[in-house]
Amino acid sequence: MLKLNSNGGEIKLDPWGYSQIADYEKLFSLFGIRPFKELLPKIKNPNHLMRRGVIFGHRDFDQILNALERGEKVALLTGFMPSGKLHFGHKMLMDQIIYYQSIGVDIILAIADIEAYAVRRMERKELIRIALEEYIANALALGLQKKNLRIYFQSNMEAPYYRLVGMFSQKVTAAEFSAIYGEISPAKVIAVLHQAADILHPMLEEYGGYKHVFVPVGADQDPHLRFTRDIADRFSGELDLRRPASTYHRFMTGLDGGKMSSSRPESAIFLSDPLEVSASKLMKAITGGRATVEEQRRLGGEPEKCSIYEMYLYHLLSNDADLLDIYTRCRQGKLLCGEDKKMAVEKMIKWLEEHQRKLEKAKNEAEKLVDVPRF
Amino acid sequence: MLKLNSNGGEIKLDPWGYSQIADYEKLFSLFGIRPFKELLPKIKNPNHLMRRGVIFGHRDFDQILNALERGEKVALLTGFMPSGKLHFGHKMLMDQIIYYQSIGVDIILAIADIEAYAVRRMERKELIRIALEEYIANALALGLQKKNLRIYFQSNMEAPYYRLVGMFSQKVTAAEFSAIYGEISPAKVIAVLHQAADILHPMLEEYGGYKHVFVPVGADQDPHLRFTRDIADRFSGELDLRRPASTYHRFMTGLDGGKMSSSRPESAIFLSDPLEVSASKLMKAITGGRATVEEQRRLGGEPEKCSIYEMYLYHLLSNDADLLDIYTRCRQGKLLCGEDKKMAVEKMIKWLEEHQRKLEKAKNEAEKLVDVPRF
Repeated sequence: MLKLNSNGGEIKLDPWGYSQIADYEKLFSLFGIRPFKELLPKIKNPNHLMRRGVIFGHRDFDQILNALERGEKVALLTGFMPSGKLHFGHKMLMDQIIYYQSIGVDIILAIADIEAYAVRRMERKELIRIALEEYIANALALGLQKKNLRIYFQSNMEAPYYRLVGMFSQKVTAAEFSAIYGEISPAKVIAVLHQAADILHPMLEEYGGYKHVFVPVGADQDPHLRFTRDIADRFSGELDLRRPASTYHRFMTGLDGGKMSSSRPESAIFLSDPLEVSASKLMKAITGGRATVEEQRRLGGEPEKCSIYEMYLYHLLSNDADLLDIYTRCRQGKLLCGEDKKMAVEKMIKWLEEHQRKLEKAKNEAEKLVDVPRF
Repeated sequence: MLKLNSNGGEIKLDPWGYSQIADYEKLFSLFGIRPFKELLPKIKNPNHLMRRGVIFGHRDFDQILNALERGEKVALLTGFMPSGKLHFGHKMLMDQIIYYQSIGVDIILAIADIEAYAVRRMERKELIRIALEEYIANALALGLQKKNLRIYFQSNMEAPYYRLVGMFSQKVTAAEFSAIYGEISPAKVIAVLHQAADILHPMLEEYGGYKHVFVPVGADQDPHLRFTRDIADRFSGELDLRRPASTYHRFMTGLDGGKMSSSRPESAIFLSDPLEVSASKLMKAITGGRATVEEQRRLGGEPEKCSIYEMYLYHLLSNDADLLDIYTRCRQGKLLCGEDKKMAVEKMIKWLEEHQRKLEKAKNEAEKLVDVPRF
C-alpha cells in the first residue's frame, strides 16, 4: 500500500485494489488458501495480473514454482464452459493461460461440453459452435500458441479418462455431493466427476506420465478444487494421483456494477462486440466519480469502485507506472470521468479492432486444433 | 399341460415347470411383460430353454423375430458382472447367447467392470482376471464363436459410448433413481448410466449403425430394462435411439433350496469345480422326494421341487422325450431319488470333464478376444 497526500489529507491508497480482496480474507483464514503475493519474489517475470493482485491466492502453487525451477513437467488445466460469448472477464483467464504457456507450462484446455449439456441443458450443436468460434478462436487471437497445447471436448476423450470418472464414483458419497453442491442429481454427479477427471487425468501414464497440475480459478470454484484434492488423496495409492495446485483470481465487476455475465449483455463487453457497441457500453459504465465535478475536484474519484479503472488494471494498461499515474490523478481529482472514459474507449477500440482482425483468421484455425464430436 | 393317471389319480402335470412361472404372473398383468410361449410358433428351432418355459416372458421380442425374418441387423447385448466363479445358473444364460449367435444374431458382451468396481467395490485386477478366466473362457468353452462377436470392458470403450453416459444424465432425475433403486449414490448413477449405454450404444452410427437390440435377463432386472426403454424414448429425437427388446428367464434354484449364488459355494456347482466336488454337491442337493421310499412309490416324487430335475431340464437332457420320461417315472413313483441322482451325476461328470478340457484351452484364447484395460 502506498500513501500520499491528497486533497482529503493522508489516506490509505490501494492502486492494485488489494482492499477488495479483503472480502476474500476468510478464504485465507478458514479454508487455507494462501496469499499469492507471498510467492511474487519467487517469480521472475510476474504478469500484470499477479503484480496487481488480481491473482490473489493459491494452494500449493509454491510446489508448481519449485517444479518449474527443477525443470519438471507442469501442466495448467482449465475448463471452458461453452455457454455464451467471450467477454473481457474471460480474457483475464486467457491472459493467464498464455502467460503460463510462455514460461514453459503445458496447457490443457477441457471444453466442458458434457457439463454444458447435462447441467446447463444446452443444445449440443450450439455449444460446439460456441466452443470453437468463441473460446478457442479467441484464445488463439489472444496469442495462445499451438505448441505444448492440448484442447479436448470432455465427450471426446479416451477410455482411461472415463475410467477415472467411473472409478471416482466409488469413493465419493451422496452426502458429500449434497454438502458441497446443495443437491445431488445424476447430471451433477456426471459433471463433477468429469471435472475431477479433467484435472487429474494428465497425471496418468496414458497422458504422458506424471506431471504437476495446477488450475487457475475464481474463488467460487474452490469447493470443486477441494473435492478434487480429496479425490486425489483417495486414489493416491491405487492410481498414484496427487493433489492439484490452484490459483485464485478476482473477477471483474460488471459494467453496471453487478456480476459480469454473458447472459446479461449490458454487464460485459464481448470481444466480438461491434466497436460502436463496445464504446457505448464502456461510456455508460459505472465509475467511481462523485456527484458533481466540483465535488470530484475536491475529494478525488474512487478508482477502486470504477469499472473504467478495472479495464485499465485488467486489460488496457500493461505498464504499472501508467496505471499508477491514472490512479493518482483520479484520486487527486485531476482526472475526471469524462476524459478518463474517452481515453479508455480509445485504447479499447484500438485493441478490439486489432483483436477482431486476428479473431476472423483464428476461427478457421480453431477446428484444426481439436477433435470435434459428431454428436 | 399334460394329464396322466398316476397312483394318486388324475393330476395336473407340468413337466416344464410352467407352474413356477405363476410367481411371475404379476409381471404379465402389472408390468406388461408378455408370455414368451405366444412366440414359440414363430420360432423355427426354439432351443430347450424356450421350449421348456425357462424363458417365459418378453418385451417386444416379436419385433426382434420380425427383424430377423426381414434380414435386418439384430444384436443381443448382455452384461457380465465379473464378481465370482461361473456356475450352472450362468451357463443357462451362456446357452441362450450361443443359441442366438447360431441363428444369426450379433453378440455384444459388456463386461461390467465399472459397476463391479464402483458398486460392488471389487479390486480391479481381480475382476479383470475373473472376466477373462471365468466369463469369457467359459463362454468360449461352451461354444461361443468368434464371428459376429464383440466383447468389451465398460472402462475401455470409445468416446461415443461415454458421451451417451454423459448425455443420459441430463434426462434422468434423482427422484427416478430413488424410486427405482431405493437410493441415489454417485456409484449407482455411474453404474446405471453405463448399463443404459451398454444397451443403447449399438444403435449408434459409430458402432455400425442402427440395429435392433435385445437383452436376455432375469425378471429382477426388469426395472433396469424399463428405465433404459424410457431413456431411449427420451433420446428418440436427438439421437434416434429406440427401445430395446428383452426376454425374461427363470433362475435355477440353489442346490440347497435357496438362491443359487457364487457367494454361497454350497448353493451352486461351478463349471470349474473339481469333478468329485461337483458330484458330492449334486448328491447332497435337495430333491422332490418323499419322506420314505414306501411313500414315494405310492405318491410319486415331485420333480417341480427337485434340483436334480432342474439340472436335467436346464442342462443335462437336450431331448424333450427323455426329460418327459424321467418326469413321468418320478411322478409315478418308479424312479427313486438315489437312482436318479446317480444318473444325473454321471451325465454331469461326463459333461464337466469335457467342458473343463475345453476350458483350459479357452483360457489362452480369452485375452485375445478383448482389449484389457491397463488399470
